[in-house]
Amino acid sequence: MVIYMDNAATSWPKPKSVYRAVLNCMKRYGANPGRSGHKMAIEAGKILLHTRKMLCQLFSIDNPFQMIFTLNATESLNLAIKGCTKPGDHIITTSMEHNSVVRPLKELEKYDIKTTYVKADSQGRIDPHDIKKAIRTNTRLIVTTHASNVTGTLVPIDEIGKIAREYGILYLVDAAQTAGIIPIDLSKLPVDMMAMAGHKGLLGPQGTGVLYIAPHVKLKPLKEGGTGSQSENLYQPEFAPDRYEAGTQNTPGIAGLGAGISYILQQGQKKLLSHIIRLEKFFLEAVSHIPGIKIYGPTNMDERIGAISINIKDFDSAYIANLLDERYNIATRGAIHCAPLAHQTIGTLKQGTVRFSPGIFNTMDEVKECIRALEQLSHLK
Amino acid sequence: MVIYMDNAATSWPKPKSVYRAVLNCMKRYGANPGRSGHKMAIEAGKILLHTRKMLCQLFSIDNPFQMIFTLNATESLNLAIKGCTKPGDHIITTSMEHNSVVRPLKELEKYDIKTTYVKADSQGRIDPHDIKKAIRTNTRLIVTTHASNVTGTLVPIDEIGKIAREYGILYLVDAAQTAGIIPIDLSKLPVDMMAMAGHKGLLGPQGTGVLYIAPHVKLKPLKEGGTGSQSENLYQPEFAPDRYEAGTQNTPGIAGLGAGISYILQQGQKKLLSHIIRLEKFFLEAVSHIPGIKIYGPTNMDERIGAISINIKDFDSAYIANLLDERYNIATRGAIHCAPLAHQTIGTLKQGTVRFSPGIFNTMDEVKECIRALEQLSHLK
Repeated sequence: MVIYMDNAATSWPKPKSVYRAVLNCMKRYGANPGRSGHKMAIEAGKILLHTRKMLCQLFSIDNPFQMIFTLNATESLNLAIKGCTKPGDHIITTSMEHNSVVRPLKELEKYDIKTTYVKADSQGRIDPHDIKKAIRTNTRLIVTTHASNVTGTLVPIDEIGKIAREYGILYLVDAAQTAGIIPIDLSKLPVDMMAMAGHKGLLGPQGTGVLYIAPHVKLKPLKEGGTGSQSENLYQPEFAPDRYEAGTQNTPGIAGLGAGISYILQQGQKKLLSHIIRLEKFFLEAVSHIPGIKIYGPTNMDERIGAISINIKDFDSAYIANLLDERYNIATRGAIHCAPLAHQTIGTLKQGTVRFSPGIFNTMDEVKECIRALEQLSHLK
Repeated sequence: MVIYMDNAATSWPKPKSVYRAVLNCMKRYGANPGRSGHKMAIEAGKILLHTRKMLCQLFSIDNPFQMIFTLNATESLNLAIKGCTKPGDHIITTSMEHNSVVRPLKELEKYDIKTTYVKADSQGRIDPHDIKKAIRTNTRLIVTTHASNVTGTLVPIDEIGKIAREYGILYLVDAAQTAGIIPIDLSKLPVDMMAMAGHKGLLGPQGTGVLYIAPHVKLKPLKEGGTGSQSENLYQPEFAPDRYEAGTQNTPGIAGLGAGISYILQQGQKKLLSHIIRLEKFFLEAVSHIPGIKIYGPTNMDERIGAISINIKDFDSAYIANLLDERYNIATRGAIHCAPLAHQTIGTLKQGTVRFSPGIFNTMDEVKECIRALEQLSHLK
């Protein structure tokens, strides 16, 4: 049996209820939500609303129409970033961002949008004061990750959000690594938009992403098309969610996402989180005593969650990840994790890192097997 | 049991192999394709390639990387239209287009892109000469549907494509209603891009779309982000398909799409098409003899496929569709089918139409039940 330690990419396995929800949707009511008015179409429409409501419950939001469905967190980020900026604007971000933030910004830089990359320390920590110092009169948006997908380092989104509010700047959080894992109260956090992957901590299938948009924010859509609403209108509707959800949605995937969030709510987010923290604490502690292994990011679990990056001596990280897969059937990710600036920050742009990311279904026995494997590999010459 | 006549929106049911492929992917190898290098991730990557190859086989294309995955046909169209045009350009389209073409064009019109809507006749027929006459020196793109989602009227894409080639203009076909249903040989057709829905004629699950991009065409992406390739690169890769597929793809959906296309290839596209034509011919013939019912679009099956729009006297189409659902358990779509210009063309912008769209799993008995129901409803006062 595989020991799956790649939950930062996609959580696996899913709760059985997720598989059932996807299958049930396809088999029993696989029609177009919000389009035709027949019973199957109405049921398809209802499941979209149900999943929005589950999201609202998890993130303490009242209005389900503030939760927008996308293909993935990357689409959510593109929609948010491009939807609120225009030539002449300035955007602040950090050196810990994933390419799903950096690459859209690099694209916008071609169109007279300026960007500042606030540097993290060597553990991936961002100082909110550095964000504040980077603010210009034309700063329109601050975008930061909630937790690095390389080092797991948490970003103080509450403090940064307060600064953004103080200056009247929009704040977008990339919660790809934390949504569903760390409790987030959007009714209290000073956050204007939050991008999420459906297939990671929220336990849904791939092909699902979410963008939370605060009531006072209106974005330019990324795509226009059929919405099932105002069919006679040649222009994209003005209201959410239709404004942002053109074309037929991934109904089975969204049904599965709803089941994933229900599972989290039933089990209790705190309980699930403390399980992951227990596994990660044990792993970090044990691995820190293996000579020849370097751990990146903070040592204190209060400052990190999820992804744990390590290296063995000077060995190429992809080579180690491959040995873990081949010899031990342990699924990790090696190399550069689509976040070159983060690797530059922690000094691993050449070597990459071996990333372990436990999920809620990993056991302490599996973690111990990972530690044993690393112990053995640490003797490699 | 429901008689599902809404296949123009989403085909249902799917072949059993589609459900199995989706489930198998989620349960057995639900990891990130093309990211991590472990066994599950490699298998996920393989299934994407497999589905691309199935698409190539169906459409007679050699290079699987010309088949780009999207969320739906709407995204494919947005990517194609926005990806090849810039301010100052002129675009030609028709009065039979879905909002997934019209709404992106209306958006572009705000940015100094001019558009011409070539008018169809009252049966939805487009004359290629009218397209030719609309060409200007700055015409960059011609975009037409392959078959109307309202009247089923076929557009002569071969002739229009030849005109486009003659003038060095890009030609984009919206094959949402035909891909998988009508044999299309992209190795011979003068078509530069073709947008498809995965969840209609191709028999895949919702959440899947495809854009075919000819080798000589390079588009500006709609979204930038992680691609698993060139992770150290701060810019979107230049090569297809990665250039256009940012973020984690809908792997289970794409696995299902591959199974759907395999089913079509196994059964034979001609056999499946002749089944649909037989059903539609019978339906059109029978309904044309019911007094008080108006059928839209051409009467000859050589000129149409898929969607059949009708109305009963002056009754609101949504009301009739609702009666069909409530009294007869027949799932159709009433009202305006996200194509206001097409409704304007055939004179149903107010009444809408009741749309019947049979699929490969509909039977002649079901068609006869639909005819009986319409016969009864035609006596409504």
